[in-house]
Amino acid sequence: MFDSDYLEGCLPEILEALQKTNFEQTSGYGNDKYCEKAAEIIRKLCAREDADIHFMVGGTQTNQTVIASILRPYQGVICADTGHINVHETGAVEMTGHKVLALSAQEGKITAKQIEKTIESHYREDGPEHMVQPAMAYISFPTEKGTLYTLSELESISKTCQKHHIPLFIDGARLGYGLSSPKCDVTLQDIARLSDVFYIGGTKQGALFGEAVVFCNRNLSVDYRYFIKQHGAMLAKGRLLGMQFQTLLENGLYFEVARRADLLALEIRKAFEEKGYKMFTDSYTNQQFPILPNETIKKLKENFSFENWVKVDEKRTAVRFCTSWATTQEQVQTLIQEIKTL
Amino acid sequence: MFDSDYLEGCLPEILEALQKTNFEQTSGYGNDKYCEKAAEIIRKLCAREDADIHFMVGGTQTNQTVIASILRPYQGVICADTGHINVHETGAVEMTGHKVLALSAQEGKITAKQIEKTIESHYREDGPEHMVQPAMAYISFPTEKGTLYTLSELESISKTCQKHHIPLFIDGARLGYGLSSPKCDVTLQDIARLSDVFYIGGTKQGALFGEAVVFCNRNLSVDYRYFIKQHGAMLAKGRLLGMQFQTLLENGLYFEVARRADLLALEIRKAFEEKGYKMFTDSYTNQQFPILPNETIKKLKENFSFENWVKVDEKRTAVRFCTSWATTQEQVQTLIQEIKTL
Amino acid sequence: MFDSDYLEGCLPEILEALQKTNFEQTSGYGNDKYCEKAAEIIRKLCAREDADIHFMVGGTQTNQTVIASILRPYQGVICADTGHINVHETGAVEMTGHKVLALSAQEGKITAKQIEKTIESHYREDGPEHMVQPAMAYISFPTEKGTLYTLSELESISKTCQKHHIPLFIDGARLGYGLSSPKCDVTLQDIARLSDVFYIGGTKQGALFGEAVVFCNRNLSVDYRYFIKQHGAMLAKGRLLGMQFQTLLENGLYFEVARRADLLALEIRKAFEEKGYKMFTDSYTNQQFPILPNETIKKLKENFSFENWVKVDEKRTAVRFCTSWATTQEQVQTLIQEIKTL
Amino acid sequence: MFDSDYLEGCLPEILEALQKTNFEQTSGYGNDKYCEKAAEIIRKLCAREDADIHFMVGGTQTNQTVIASILRPYQGVICADTGHINVHETGAVEMTGHKVLALSAQEGKITAKQIEKTIESHYREDGPEHMVQPAMAYISFPTEKGTLYTLSELESISKTCQKHHIPLFIDGARLGYGLSSPKCDVTLQDIARLSDVFYIGGTKQGALFGEAVVFCNRNLSVDYRYFIKQHGAMLAKGRLLGMQFQTLLENGLYFEVARRADLLALEIRKAFEEKGYKMFTDSYTNQQFPILPNETIKKLKENFSFENWVKVDEKRTAVRFCTSWATTQEQVQTLIQEIKTL
Repeated sequence: MFDSDYLEGCLPEILEALQKTNFEQTSGYGNDKYCEKAAEIIRKLCAREDADIHFMVGGTQTNQTVIASILRPYQGVICADTGHINVHETGAVEMTGHKVLALSAQEGKITAKQIEKTIESHYREDGPEHMVQPAMAYISFPTEKGTLYTLSELESISKTCQKHHIPLFIDGARLGYGLSSPKCDVTLQDIARLSDVFYIGGTKQGALFGEAVVFCNRNLSVDYRYFIKQHGAMLAKGRLLGMQFQTLLENGLYFEVARRADLLALEIRKAFEEKGYKMFTDSYTNQQFPILPNETIKKLKENFSFENWVKVDEKRTAVRFCTSWATTQEQVQTLIQEIKTL
Repeated sequence: MFDSDYLEGCLPEILEALQKTNFEQTSGYGNDKYCEKAAEIIRKLCAREDADIHFMVGGTQTNQTVIASILRPYQGVICADTGHINVHETGAVEMTGHKVLALSAQEGKITAKQIEKTIESHYREDGPEHMVQPAMAYISFPTEKGTLYTLSELESISKTCQKHHIPLFIDGARLGYGLSSPKCDVTLQDIARLSDVFYIGGTKQGALFGEAVVFCNRNLSVDYRYFIKQHGAMLAKGRLLGMQFQTLLENGLYFEVARRADLLALEIRKAFEEKGYKMFTDSYTNQQFPILPNETIKKLKENFSFENWVKVDEKRTAVRFCTSWATTQEQVQTLIQEIKTL
Repeated sequence: MFDSDYLEGCLPEILEALQKTNFEQTSGYGNDKYCEKAAEIIRKLCAREDADIHFMVGGTQTNQTVIASILRPYQGVICADTGHINVHETGAVEMTGHKVLALSAQEGKITAKQIEKTIESHYREDGPEHMVQPAMAYISFPTEKGTLYTLSELESISKTCQKHHIPLFIDGARLGYGLSSPKCDVTLQDIARLSDVFYIGGTKQGALFGEAVVFCNRNLSVDYRYFIKQHGAMLAKGRLLGMQFQTLLENGLYFEVARRADLLALEIRKAFEEKGYKMFTDSYTNQQFPILPNETIKKLKENFSFENWVKVDEKRTAVRFCTSWATTQEQVQTLIQEIKTL
Repeated sequence: MFDSDYLEGCLPEILEALQKTNFEQTSGYGNDKYCEKAAEIIRKLCAREDADIHFMVGGTQTNQTVIASILRPYQGVICADTGHINVHETGAVEMTGHKVLALSAQEGKITAKQIEKTIESHYREDGPEHMVQPAMAYISFPTEKGTLYTLSELESISKTCQKHHIPLFIDGARLGYGLSSPKCDVTLQDIARLSDVFYIGGTKQGALFGEAVVFCNRNLSVDYRYFIKQHGAMLAKGRLLGMQFQTLLENGLYFEVARRADLLALEIRKAFEEKGYKMFTDSYTNQQFPILPNETIKKLKENFSFENWVKVDEKRTAVRFCTSWATTQEQVQTLIQEIKTL
């Protein structure tokens, strides 16, 4: 039951909204009042009245479509070697013709300096055209390892991107869990101020599905609807997306449930640490990666489910415990009791 | 309110199923019991115990992914010039590198003979490699104009495809409306017997979203999940698709509501014909295309909504009236009363 | 010996130039003095001092690379249904993700009006993103059928393209044969004035290989070298291209040999017409397409080689006789003698 | 004059062959007697009577076309991070939709073990479809750093590829320089026995241009001509390629000139080493990479030209000296004299 943050359906408030509006008739393809309303809420929360908002169904789809819409054919996207687009999207970016320029990450993160060096190393005065042109930076917030960029790190990266005239794209599949973490010094408005485009993940935070793409830099989105359609990503009943984000965001539900999940995750972390287990990454969000002896894992799996993440050595494995909007205090307490007996 | 067949949410039975199962935990990505159950039902209904079933979110996505998964890079897909993939998918097929070989259609349909001629004309003994190789036929059932292939036409097309070793792919975005038409002499089992791959459309027939792809020819689907993922089309909470198709198909709901919509559409057709209006296409399904004087259209639009389809001449336009699972007898009667007064 | 215009090696002047410069050392990839010199000559001949010139190896490569460099992913290129990119390039344009929007051609030509209508029909106020966006017009001069656009036709097409802000691309694989035809009222400077990008074909007009791409609209070529490289089209010893075009163009050799080939072709045409044979197309360039009885073809093939082009009816076939820079007066006279005896 | 191995035109024997056959008429597109003859010679030299041979114009084009013809869309190619396809082809492989899976190389080489580990790490029992499938290994012989795989290394790599049913592709852009090195224990027949497909580079070894692709595994090449055409890589006057390879290979000219260039390069290496300079890589082929103080480089560049390769530290840079079929004994002696004075 700690396998992932998309094991259940959705927040009851969302089902309720679907129920209540089911027989209303609206235009298709995202041209409806729910999408409009959700976009308006997002613009306000981001303090970006000029932002252009589009709703997509899933994360890989969003990454692929946003990147394909921005890069020219010979350009590539810089990212962490552990980045989702580099590892777990079956080459979705390459499918659209673009190289992923993967940099060696520390705790899932890359630095402004690495980005700068990559840009410089791909430029030769006498023939830059023999190499892919780095033309976008992609980072995840939080990262695939649950870690967070600090505000200062984000500002450096943003500045470097601006200096080299390349857009910064932030994958926010778990954005809420990141922003709600007690260790986070970044706000949604910072994200909107420092990136050119980012998204607010719904799928992993209580929606049935859905990611809200926010183009802070409107120059980048003038023809984005063409890309949505061409990628088979235009939901006929687009209102389903608008309605979910309206429900999540208009009264703070999104951040409330994320905060709760983070705190539950940190209780799990604490329990492991108190027993002397090391953590694979320094995560303060809803994913925790303790390194456990293989026998301990076997024992814990008798009563709990969670994913094996990375083999650390012959005897130990890093595993992942995920909390979500649906995780209960009881589930966590039962787990903690068991950890104490290890 | 007759604009399209995806104006509302979904059949109440589907919302009910979502509600009832909301807190169950299942694996993601379509590896869950609901998808398994729905696949089993489909295999039975199709009398194809060996069929391989996959669930997708929307029609363009399905067309793009299925075609890309089957063709080699230098191959193309034969279709009607009015076919959805040729006209209304923003080049989604070409995006994956393949030419759409569009044939001049009659009433939205192409013939076995046209397909054969196309294959032959693309082959030259001394250098076939200078032309795209036609390697798949795509037809829609019903067509984009609401018309239906007869069983005999389908059998000819299927035979021609087999003779030339190219798969036949049937776009069933509105399959239920087709199979349930009083003029249809084709069954679901015929579709499954005569095609290599087809899909059962959910989006336009009462689901929130969803298309069930049926690979009758299993050789074609061995690596299909890679394509789903790479196209950003793998729904994290895949069970939403399985659950919807289970609900639609296990007790015949899907065909029941389609039949009802077809009959309502035919009442509308009859009303127009009785007033002497010609129909743009000979449709016996849920889409009706009367040719109306522009002034009449203007008048009708005061109380009813429907789409302008094609300009026929300076004074007349073919329009589209669409019924759906959600259309009520009252709505149709009110429309018919108005038609009578024209 | 009348099969095509690329049966032999090259003009002796070119071999001579290669010989003379063989041991010179130059930079690779087109950054050499020969390419520079050839570009300069072309700019002068075109009276476009601002044109950006690039040299490519072959026609399909040039079409694919130019089109891919200009279109955005969801855009398509308008062309004649008989256009080379639509029929004989194995989907090279689609391979790069773009739809070829093929219009019904007359004598290999399309009109300004057809282009305009296509642009308009692909635009819908309430959702243009469901269709490919026509964003370029491609025509061949002369056409694949040997015919020529008149200056007035070219001006109309150019004006329409400008009106709709789409570039006009002219495939000049046989440009010399076109411009040198006695029936041609268009000059090289007209081509350069009326198009945004075009190319001067070398392969079919006496070079070993090579096409000189002329970007009259420099905005279109800022990153073209990236595309050349990415398409595997950047010749290491780029000087071979520059040297050939320098040789062809600096003293008018290119047009001289084309003129000669055209006149020889017209003698062949005249011989057929005097015997009462109809021509398949009204060509005044180096390709002639007489319609001959199948028996006559068989007889002629005993002593001459030429291509069967299109089956006209059960008894007759249009064939192609091609002259080139290498065709001799003797070969043509022998053929004409034989025609007279038919 | 030591900048690269493609500064001059071509071996005089090739120009002579072009001259002698210039007015012969042959079929286009590689269907001619010269290509046939060259293929026959290659098959004999390789002792692979069943090999399928195709001629291409350049290296990037060859890499792109071969890889695209073999991989399915969701598959990737394993290579060294220093591999030409990873670094210097402007994303030509990604352009066709495929991920390049770059492994950390030692001296430009990767190992069988690395390949195996990569394949294993991309497979998960519960969902391999979330990652690109490694489906080909690409290595260069000699490598981009001038180094050579030993026979034993090649045999291990080949065995690993076979075990995992993935083809091995060897980039032989400088194959002759590799096979002719005094330190090489691999023969052309080994290359042909151990790889599924490889090519014999002409461009950098005395041809005007041209790479001969040898499919040892014929299953991989059944539709290769479609790919050549679709990639704009089918030379109209294909005989130019056949004729060059016939000239190079029928009397051993290719290996003779490569051997000579290697020995000259090794003299240069020796001269640097005798003066105490370290080499950046342990190359025994025609490229030598001494690490020199920046001042020394400046001084040497007064009389000689060569490329700066990699900055080693603040004071030193690795540079590249390239010999070729055209390098003379005199040029090398003059350089060596200068080195002695450093």
